[in-house]
Order: sequence, then C-alpha cells, then structure tokens
Amino acid sequence: MAATKGFLAVMVLCLLSSPLPSRAQTSSSFPVNVWPKPTSMSWAEPLMAMPVSASFRIVGTSGNNPHLVLATQRYTALIFTERYRPIVRPPVNLTAEGPELQSLTLSVSDMSAPLQDGVDESYVLEILPTGVASITAATPWGAMHGLESFSQLAWRSGSGKLLVATGVRVEDRPLYQHRGLMLDTGRTYFPVLDILRTIDTMAANKMNVFHWHITDSQSFPIELPSEPALAEMGSYGEDMRYTVEDVQRIVEFAMSRGVRVVPEIDGPGHTASWAGAYPEAVSCAGKFWLPDANDWESRLAAEPGSGQLNPLKSKTYEVVANVINDITSLFPEGFYHGGADEVTPGCWETDPSIQADMESGGTLSQLLERYVRAVHPHVVSKNRTVVFWEDVLLDAAVNVSASLLPPATTILQSWNGGANNTKRIVQAGYRAIVSSASFYYLDCGHGDFVGNNSVYDDQRSDFDTQGGSWCGPFKTWQRVYDYDIAYNLTAEEAKLVIGGEVALWTEQADATVLDGRLWPRSAAMAEALWSGNRDASGMKRYAEATDRLNDWRHRMVGRGIRAEPIQPLWCRTRPGMCNLVR
Amino acid sequence: MAATKGFLAVMVLCLLSSPLPSRAQTSSSFPVNVWPKPTSMSWAEPLMAMPVSASFRIVGTSGNNPHLVLATQRYTALIFTERYRPIVRPPVNLTAEGPELQSLTLSVSDMSAPLQDGVDESYVLEILPTGVASITAATPWGAMHGLESFSQLAWRSGSGKLLVATGVRVEDRPLYQHRGLMLDTGRTYFPVLDILRTIDTMAANKMNVFHWHITDSQSFPIELPSEPALAEMGSYGEDMRYTVEDVQRIVEFAMSRGVRVVPEIDGPGHTASWAGAYPEAVSCAGKFWLPDANDWESRLAAEPGSGQLNPLKSKTYEVVANVINDITSLFPEGFYHGGADEVTPGCWETDPSIQADMESGGTLSQLLERYVRAVHPHVVSKNRTVVFWEDVLLDAAVNVSASLLPPATTILQSWNGGANNTKRIVQAGYRAIVSSASFYYLDCGHGDFVGNNSVYDDQRSDFDTQGGSWCGPFKTWQRVYDYDIAYNLTAEEAKLVIGGEVALWTEQADATVLDGRLWPRSAAMAEALWSGNRDASGMKRYAEATDRLNDWRHRMVGRGIRAEPIQPLWCRTRPGMCNLVR
Repeated sequence: MAATKGFLAVMVLCLLSSPLPSRAQTSSSFPVNVWPKPTSMSWAEPLMAMPVSASFRIVGTSGNNPHLVLATQRYTALIFTERYRPIVRPPVNLTAEGPELQSLTLSVSDMSAPLQDGVDESYVLEILPTGVASITAATPWGAMHGLESFSQLAWRSGSGKLLVATGVRVEDRPLYQHRGLMLDTGRTYFPVLDILRTIDTMAANKMNVFHWHITDSQSFPIELPSEPALAEMGSYGEDMRYTVEDVQRIVEFAMSRGVRVVPEIDGPGHTASWAGAYPEAVSCAGKFWLPDANDWESRLAAEPGSGQLNPLKSKTYEVVANVINDITSLFPEGFYHGGADEVTPGCWETDPSIQADMESGGTLSQLLERYVRAVHPHVVSKNRTVVFWEDVLLDAAVNVSASLLPPATTILQSWNGGANNTKRIVQAGYRAIVSSASFYYLDCGHGDFVGNNSVYDDQRSDFDTQGGSWCGPFKTWQRVYDYDIAYNLTAEEAKLVIGGEVALWTEQADATVLDGRLWPRSAAMAEALWSGNRDASGMKRYAEATDRLNDWRHRMVGRGIRAEPIQPLWCRTRPGMCNLVR
Repeated sequence: MAATKGFLAVMVLCLLSSPLPSRAQTSSSFPVNVWPKPTSMSWAEPLMAMPVSASFRIVGTSGNNPHLVLATQRYTALIFTERYRPIVRPPVNLTAEGPELQSLTLSVSDMSAPLQDGVDESYVLEILPTGVASITAATPWGAMHGLESFSQLAWRSGSGKLLVATGVRVEDRPLYQHRGLMLDTGRTYFPVLDILRTIDTMAANKMNVFHWHITDSQSFPIELPSEPALAEMGSYGEDMRYTVEDVQRIVEFAMSRGVRVVPEIDGPGHTASWAGAYPEAVSCAGKFWLPDANDWESRLAAEPGSGQLNPLKSKTYEVVANVINDITSLFPEGFYHGGADEVTPGCWETDPSIQADMESGGTLSQLLERYVRAVHPHVVSKNRTVVFWEDVLLDAAVNVSASLLPPATTILQSWNGGANNTKRIVQAGYRAIVSSASFYYLDCGHGDFVGNNSVYDDQRSDFDTQGGSWCGPFKTWQRVYDYDIAYNLTAEEAKLVIGGEVALWTEQADATVLDGRLWPRSAAMAEALWSGNRDASGMKRYAEATDRLNDWRHRMVGRGIRAEPIQPLWCRTRPGMCNLVR
C-alpha cells in the first residue's frame, strides 16, 4: 500500500533534478561511521578493531577546564554504558592477541578559549593499533567534538564485547561556525529536562547553538528578577515557568557540551503575554486576531493571539530595558536575539495613541524605528551582537532604515522567500543565519491549529493544498540535508552566511512529540553545515547518507532519543535495494 | 513566525468551502465531555457533580461474562487511579452536603452475545443525584462502552477530590458498526506492549476493530505452527516474531475491551518475505524493485522489496492453505483479510513459468483468479467472511471477475480514488470498509523512504510537490474528522458502507513515534464514525470538536499515550480566540 501512480509524479521531478549518485560514492562510508561525517577520516585497510580495556581512561590537560572535565567524565561513562550494536555487524577484523585500548590523551593548546561565535572547533583524533588514542585540539570545544567522534567509533560485538576502531585518523572542522536549533517555549512550555535532552543530542550532532525562543504572545515563561510580574501574569502557570536556577542549569549544561545558548525575547510583536503585567504598554492585547476573515490585511496578528508593545509608551522602554539587563546577566552568550518579526500593522492601528500619532503624520515604520533606536544600542552596550529576524529590514509594510542596524553589531536571520532573502541580507552587508521556512522549519506540514477553518472540509480525494499548513509540505530529512544555505550567492556574499538553524515553532508540538519532530531531521542539517552534503566528486551524497543516518538514528534511539525512523529495517540490511536507481 | 501570506491561500479555499459554524453550536459541548461525543447526552441544569465514595463499586450481572468482569475491574481501578484535571476547571456546582456516588449497576440483557460484526453496541448510562448510577445495555460490548463513558465523566477537583457529573443521562449507539485501525507490522515490527497500548486506546475511543496487517514483503513476523519456516526465514529476527502466546494474549486483551482483531495475511503480492522459506513459490524475490527508473510500468513492486506468490506453483497453495488453517484457528474473529492489493505485473512477468503460461495464452488476471479461486472458498469454509483490498476487483491491470467474489462472503476495503472507489464497490453490491488514502492514511505526508531520490534536491523555496510523499499532504485531524465516508452515495448505496479504518503503514514509523502518528487523529475518525461530524442542525461541528479534542487529548496523555497536541494551551483557555471566524 505504497507508491502507486502518485509516485510517478515524484519520479518525473526526479528526472528534472540533479543527477543521481553512482554506486561508487557509497563506498565513502565505513562499516562504523561518525555523524556528522568528518571533514576527513581514514581507517587503515584491512579494517581493524580492538577491545577497550576495563581500565580505559581519558587523560591529559582537561583539568584546566571544568567544562572539559565534565565532558571527559561523561564520555568515559558513555563508552562503557552505551550498548550500541550496529544494525549490520561491521566486517572488521579483531586484533586477536593484540593490545586493548588503554587510554585516550587530550591535548588542547588554548584551554581558556571562550565558547563564542567563530571559536576554533577543529580537532584531530587518532586511534593507534598500539592501544593508545589521542585528541589534539586548539580549544576545549574542539576537544569535545573529538570525544563525541571517539564515542561513535566504539560499538559492541555480537557477544557484547566493547570494541573500538583502530588505525583511524580523523581531521575535522566545521564548514559553518553557526549550527543551531531553535525551540519555541513561548507557545508551548517545555520542561527543563526536555530542553537538556535536546541540547545533549545537539552536542552529539556537533551542533553548537541552542536558540531559545523563550517568550511569545502565548506565554512569558521566564522569571526575571527585575520584572517578576511578566512571568507571574504572563506564564501558563506556576509550574510552567523557568526560574533563574533553571536558566543557570541550562546554560551550564550546554556549556559543558560546547553548546551556546542564545536567548530570544521577541518584540515589539509577539508580546500579548506582556499585557497581563503591563496592559498600558501593549497594543491590541486581548482582541480577536482576525476581525474580518475575508480581509487578511486587517489581521491584528499573524496568528492568535494579538498584542504588540507600543513604542509610544515610556513603560515599554522601562520594561524592555529591565528585560535586557536581566537576560544579558543571566546569559553569558555574546548574541542577543531581539526578535522583531511579524510586526502587524492592524494591531498598532487599533491603538488610540498610535492613531493620534499617525494623524499627526507618523508612520508605523517610524514607530518600529523608535523601538529599535532604544533596544539596539542598549543591547550593544552590554557587549552583545544583536540578532533580529529578517523582517526588521525586509518586511514590506513595517521596517527600519539600515542606518539603524550597523552590520558590525547586527546579524539578520532569514526565514522567508527561500534563498532570496538570504541574498538580500548579505547584499546589504549583514551576516546571515539561515532558517528558511521552506527547508528548516520542522513544524511545517502538520496542518494548522486554527479552530474553525473549513478548508479541511473538502471531500475531494485530490486534497491539493499544503494540507492546511502555510509552510507545508513537511520538511523531510532529505529536504533538510540537500539544502544549500549559500545557494545563489557569490563567493563573497557566501562569506557572510555564518550558518543556519532548524526551527521548531510549537503551535502543535510539546514534550510528547518533541524528539520525533527534531530528530533525525536536525541531524541532517548538522551534517550539511559541518562537512557539507556533497562527496569528494562534488555530487550530492544523500544516497550514501541514508545508510549512515539509519545507523545514527538507531544509535540515538539507544541513547534515549525518540527519533523518527527513516526506512524499514529491511532497507538497511539490503544495501542499495531501497534506492530509486540501482 | 506563523501564518503569514501563505495562510491567505488557506483563507481563500476556506471561503470556497462549506459555511462556518456559528457560535451557538459551541454550546452543544459540556464542561466535561465524553469522546466520541455520544449520540445523545443530557446534563441537568444547573450542572452538578458529586464526590465518588471511597467504597464505590461496579455491581450487576457482569459475573456471567469473564470479559466484562475484567472490564469492570479495569474501570474501577481507572476511576480511582486516573488523576485527570480538566484544562479549564468545570463551572459545576458540588452537591454540598449531598450524597456520594456509591455504585454503578450494570444490567445486560444478552450476556452471551458474541463480539462480531454488527453486534449491538448501544448502552444507556444514568448518573442520578441520589448517588446511584446505572448502565443498561443489550450486550457486554455495549456495557463496556458505557463504562468508558462513565470514566470520562469523572475528574479531579482543584484539591484532588474525585468527582463525577450527576443528573446525567447518555443514550448512545454507533452510526457505523466497523470503526477500525490498521497497523502494519510487516514493514516494521512492533513490540506486543505497543500493540496492547494501541488496542487499549482504541477501546477508550469506542473503536472496535484492530486490523492487524501482520505480514508484508519486508518481514513475516508471526510464528505459525504448521509453517514455522515462514517466520524463521522471513522475520527480522528471533526477537521480532509474534509467538502463538503473543497472539492469544493480544486477542484476549482486545476481547476484554470490545475490540475485534482482524488478521491480514497479504497475498499474492507483498510476499517477498515468504521466499526465505519457499523460494520456489515466490516470483521475482530478491530482484531490484525498479529496473528502469524512467519506466514506472516496469517496476517489480509498488515499493522495495519485490516478491509475489506464484499461482502456478502447487507449493503456493500448500503453504497458503496451512497459513489459513493456522490463522483461523488462532483468531476467533469472523473476518479474514486476504490482502490481494497491488499485484504488480512486472514481477510475475519476470518468472519463467509465468512467461511460459502467458505464451500459451494465459493472462495475469487469470493468474490472480487462479489464486483467488483457491483462497476464497478455503477461508469461507472456515466460516469466515473474506476481506480484500479493492484492487482485487478494481485494479486496472490485474483483477478478478466479480463472479469469484460472492457479496455474501466478501467485503472490499477501498483506499484509492477517494470516494469514487467506495461508490464503485457498493454499486457492485459489496459491503465496503473505507480507508481512503486521501483521508485515512496516517503515514502520509512524512516524505518517502527511497534511498536516492533526487526530488528533494530542489533549492526553490516553493517546494510544491507533496513533499515526496505519494499520498501527501499529511492528513490532519480536521481532515480525518470532516471526511464523510458515504460521500456521493445514494441512501441505498450508503447502507453497504459498514464503516472505516484509519491505516498506519510503517515505512517510516516504529514504536518510537507510534502514539503520535495514531493519536489524536484516530480519535477524530472514531467520533465521526460513532456519532458523526455534524451538529443537530446538520452543520459540520469541527469548531466545537476542537475544544473537546484538546481535552480528550489531554486526558489520553494522562493515561500514558503520547498523542500529538493540536493547539497551544493558550487556545483552550480562551474559547473562540483561536478560531478563524469569531
């Protein structure tokens, strides 16, 4: 009950698209692999493995860095407790009477290198047949990646013996310095443990930025010392708030895994939840979001519910200043995400004070500029780089002059128009983070949440919309993997793309389905941004990646992540048989 | 980061579609509801609730039926152990000094009525302010539905007190006698506990048929006493087989919940897994499924892998006869599903014996007829009704004459062509089970699993295919809920539609994501087939159903089901605010 004619349409498109990889490239994967695929990995022929000694230890200079100490302890435990058995038993020779692996030695040249944008994440890992292994890295953060790679080169034999590949050399470094995942805890609250598990899995995929979209119109879940009323009045409830201790725990947990936590406090849009504490500072709060279903332009918000900070109110700046002060003291991270997406004209236009301002010649863009003039310098004064969504500059209706957004202290995150808006951002001289909704939005393709939309009441069998999802269809792992975030850019323009982020907006996701929404699709981006999506010949390597991702997903599940399967087991055990072209 | 212009397209379609419900119909739901919505329910004004006595007991005649005894024990435990707190605290008055609920009395007129197609599932539930409650039903199976409804009318107060609605009368019976869920354990093995949890959740949704698609080309996971080699050689492994004891446990578990287990052994297509034991009986096994990617007609199977029973081999009939004998003795159920879907010409045409037969004038349809002539009467001789997929009659290339499929002993299950094929089936005089892929296939919209399909390598932002899924887009709960399975049928034709089944094919689903794929979307079908998808005025009631489904999903999660969320919590706590039209 599967392909049928519908598949034919796919076939046709397939022929219009890029050439298919030949069998040859498949050999670029090993019986046991590291995900994301390293920049360079060699495994001496004939492939050999050795047992790991019960007294195996990770030694070296880690003592000088508390985060690296935690990492070495964690990986030492992981090596012995993980019971990973490859789906296909590796055709690897055991060193019969040979040595066991006794130690892994770390040497890090700059142990005090801070975890920040652009830090050196490279490492070299060697596992020698003599029974010793080493990781050489410029920073603790590169060393952590080396430890993860080492852990993925260990497995259990059929009899349960712990083995590790030998004669292996990995030279590795990322293509892109920013490899992120965005989680929206404003629409739906996620327990701290789910956030920690997500960050842990990011680290295993060598992703280094957890973009925490903390607040939104639906809730304000973070307790801020200077503004306690925001969470008291704006969260979903006492049991759905992040305390200062929660935040510190999350930041420390991430740091010990080489993951930065970039906080986002969205504004001036997406702030209905602020109205509980400060109704005077929020326009159109509590109003029905779509007064006229026949006039999309009249909407008060992009979705329920409506509410935007009013740039004419002094209270707005008082509260935002306190928020910025608290957030920058809670988060050591050098990026501060200010949101600035989807400012909706209809909302501000319902506000009497703004109506008066417009009657006296004011414009909505001037209102946004007033807000940005206050927020941007304040954030910069905290030695932070400001990240905004592309809208602040590219929105057709409400935007600010580029002169208010100095490229030196501003990064723009693209999400609309596929590759086009990324090009507009870098051509304007800004660094770009790519989160194209057409490729990287993990929530898309599951319909929509609006309560009484009759679009679904359609008895035709050829339901040919996007399934009610504005950004449908679902972004498959292949779609994520194959995306070139510098598509259609010149070499010069491409230099300004610092990386990308998959994003999970949570209108229809909570902890019950979190893992499946994120994994293994986020892993697909992780590899594309780490070592690319092409093989040595420049051919897209999705075919060869399929088997490796099957294995990696299998391993992630064993580590407690409820990642989605991508193929029946039948396929993994019959190489090539589930391909479209033999 | 949500609706944006894309939403407008939805809006437009919305206006082309059926009228939106008015606010009035929303009042047809109560502060505490039963899912699926009963045919008739009244709750006396002012709405009252009473505590449940610690000595509460379910009494009556259940002793005469061991399955009902188990059900009363289960629900007695559930009432006290479930800690369900409604998202919105019910505005219900507590009987201050009034009585507590002491007992629920069952009275069943025909305690020995077998669980079979068309059995009376009606019940009447009354909860009186005097502290007594009663369920009156014709059969134990109706009584079980009454027990489930009763359990859903109980909740915990803010202080944790166990309350139950009083002054309630429910008169209830299903619109359709067949309300099923199909799970494919051939492509992916599911542990017994996951199957039991699924059946338990089906019962909570008053679904009554678990259609177990046991085997497929990828694996043959059931151990059959007469044909042990099939599982030995055809399963994914020793730890991925259903033993006779497993099957008995599943059948008994389901019976004590009023759920029938309809076994499907697919054939003659989808049988590559039989080739391990009987290569001589299977055509094209082990061959690459798509010899020419440019010629879809040349495929050997609808998807990897290929293999079809060869109707010219005596071995085929010997094995199939043993399988039918074992399955009908293992499953007491009156339906036997014989599959017969997607017989693929290319496979048989590669088989020398079949080539010879065709050269002497034979046709592929004659081959299928030869197979059906042997299988159908054998199954009927076991006092079973044969269920086949529509293909056996409607497939354009390979099909059999209706004369081989007596309507008295044959039911056809539709899946292609939306409502059209259902109409063709009933017009031919057959009873129909509706599983339209355009509405009821729960696996659709997550892409495809084929390994090197370059369709995904498309850098355009307007990825306008179905996301690589032949049956995309994703079938949202609204889409499932709004489907009218008797659409475009005359009243006479509609009588032959005995019900429907949601189906989960498992190319890309396993136990890690099972709950989220099935729930709450299956619950949407469960209500549509139990009491319909329209309100008293005949208007589609999806708007009013949204709040109730939020609550029911919340309750299912509390019962341990990882069901997907359908809206942010914000919406449920602000009635109407997340609608498209106020």
